[in-house]
Amino acid sequence: MPTVRLYDADQPLTLASGQQLELVDVAYTTHGTLNETGDNAVFICHALTGDAQVIGPRTDGRPGWWETMVGPGKPIDTDRYFVICPNLLGGCQGTTGPSCAREDGGEIWGLDFPLLQMADFVTVHRALAAHLGVRRLHAAVGGSLGGMQVLQWALDHPQDLRHAVIIAASSRLTAQNIAFSAVAREAILRDPGFASGRYGETGSVPSTGLSIARMMAHITYLSEEAMSEKFGRRFQSPGRTGGGFGIDFAVESYLAHQATSFLNRFDALSYLYLSRVMDYFDPFATEGVAARAAEVGTDFCVISFDSDWRFDTGHSLRIVDQLLDSGASVTFREIPSPWGHDSFLLDVDRYQDTVRAFLSHHGPEEDGGGV
Amino acid sequence: MPTVRLYDADQPLTLASGQQLELVDVAYTTHGTLNETGDNAVFICHALTGDAQVIGPRTDGRPGWWETMVGPGKPIDTDRYFVICPNLLGGCQGTTGPSCAREDGGEIWGLDFPLLQMADFVTVHRALAAHLGVRRLHAAVGGSLGGMQVLQWALDHPQDLRHAVIIAASSRLTAQNIAFSAVAREAILRDPGFASGRYGETGSVPSTGLSIARMMAHITYLSEEAMSEKFGRRFQSPGRTGGGFGIDFAVESYLAHQATSFLNRFDALSYLYLSRVMDYFDPFATEGVAARAAEVGTDFCVISFDSDWRFDTGHSLRIVDQLLDSGASVTFREIPSPWGHDSFLLDVDRYQDTVRAFLSHHGPEEDGGGV
Repeated sequence: MPTVRLYDADQPLTLASGQQLELVDVAYTTHGTLNETGDNAVFICHALTGDAQVIGPRTDGRPGWWETMVGPGKPIDTDRYFVICPNLLGGCQGTTGPSCAREDGGEIWGLDFPLLQMADFVTVHRALAAHLGVRRLHAAVGGSLGGMQVLQWALDHPQDLRHAVIIAASSRLTAQNIAFSAVAREAILRDPGFASGRYGETGSVPSTGLSIARMMAHITYLSEEAMSEKFGRRFQSPGRTGGGFGIDFAVESYLAHQATSFLNRFDALSYLYLSRVMDYFDPFATEGVAARAAEVGTDFCVISFDSDWRFDTGHSLRIVDQLLDSGASVTFREIPSPWGHDSFLLDVDRYQDTVRAFLSHHGPEEDGGGV
Repeated sequence: MPTVRLYDADQPLTLASGQQLELVDVAYTTHGTLNETGDNAVFICHALTGDAQVIGPRTDGRPGWWETMVGPGKPIDTDRYFVICPNLLGGCQGTTGPSCAREDGGEIWGLDFPLLQMADFVTVHRALAAHLGVRRLHAAVGGSLGGMQVLQWALDHPQDLRHAVIIAASSRLTAQNIAFSAVAREAILRDPGFASGRYGETGSVPSTGLSIARMMAHITYLSEEAMSEKFGRRFQSPGRTGGGFGIDFAVESYLAHQATSFLNRFDALSYLYLSRVMDYFDPFATEGVAARAAEVGTDFCVISFDSDWRFDTGHSLRIVDQLLDSGASVTFREIPSPWGHDSFLLDVDRYQDTVRAFLSHHGPEEDGGGV
């Protein structure tokens, strides 16, 4: 996977907090070809635990995380668009984050890594797009945390984007949303293996905390209906009648599996930093923040799923209302799907079609804007 | 608080699993006076983390857990009824449980304590009622796990009960219900302080696991609406703008407080044992299980709260359907309340009135049955 050093000591990254990062590497993938006018690029922002591998195969043969949406002939058509997907700032899949070294060969950041805001993701995304020669994006697209980044981008720099696609996202977490994240962080922070964030040096791993965080999150990613459909009260091993504290029910096996595979690919410090950005995200708290998007004419597409209880349709409708109140152009659709929040990653009737149609409304164009 | 030894080596408790317990002490409180015919008793079954102190004051001055429902002139009127409330088997508030000694002065049970079933709670409850001279209960009443005990009692021994009041309960947990409990148990079991259940000997405490379990549970006890109303996105200390990993939001402070106070009063092994009983509870899996209750004429009152998402109204309606299909007499009411599952502990319009009216339909009576 390509990695580019976008910021260094000569040209450090200034964060929204005013703090600076003197070394930022960004891992990314691209698919398709940038056209001569530099305006057929679609920028994909991944969710909390995603990565740059939007389509595969990965080095270990596994598929990418959004094969249903991206590829030749898919809604985000790599025969037509130049698709860019980086790992985000603060992540742990190739882009600089809290478990990276402060400088080449230096010590690991740990909890000394500066706190991030949604705008920081956008700053780095913009720099990557410019680095790749993009003049103006045809679209930025993202689900969940990815959708929140797209919203921030469109509000702060609408001239960069012709289309903004915001899927299963929120402009302001509820107390319950924050509570779930708070418990997850607490499980990580209190795991002795976390070692005050120095586990990269001690060789310990906060595997219990990260497992608990992931298992709990997975409950919120699936609708109750989908869990009942997939697992019900089925026993993992038929014939069980006892009731110990191990894995008796199929749903327990599912959670344990999700936890284990997560440990192999995700980092505890990134979990803390990225989830906290979501808690604080509240762009519409700034009066008139959507006015420029309306002026520039960025087209928004906001999509929710009817069984999503992590970010239910109310979250999307709030985004729609705020945008419409500012005079922006907004398409909204609630997609019927039984799979809950996870729906944004799945092959759901009408969902892919909605994205395809929205991106096709206007082809790559020639007027205005620039990254 | 009185404690009685209901089982000993001469007369051990035989559990539903066939295993025996040779020493069972039961802590309980009573309020009011048993009438001469021994049929004005109301038996209260507490929920997962409740205790025998249904009304206070406790030794430390705190009130009991159900002051809104029980007391002179309250719906469960101690001027009229003889109210009995024990701590349940497997608990940690005076009744024998997994953190108790196997025998007087002996070693602590830990994970060698036998696995329990809902019927075991009922066996011990019946023995206590008989010990106290009750001939037939005017009613058994319980919320959440307490309601599940009442249901089991009424199905297995309907002659014991004139009325059965089942509040915010379930006859069969969903995959999501089980999943939340599974993650809570995992947090406890994987806490190094748990020490394979021998923490009573080592002096360690699985405080992280128990805290995580409690915080997560509290999210499910409140409706999202109630959490938004109570906490919203308010900061705990006004003027904060940063975003660290400590307690920034009011909802985080609430969860931390709940966790801390829980550690002072609850036991990790009890959490494992009691929550697992709920996972396995499925009385209507036995064909015709409600037939005797219909025959004997036990009156059921099933109550749900419209904002309860831990055991939503669907759980109560399933109980109602199963009972009605067997010809039992059932009153059902869904109570409007914004507070979620916690509503069963609160002063909610119509709720207390519903219980009062149901218990008053027929006064303590003279015919049939016996504990």
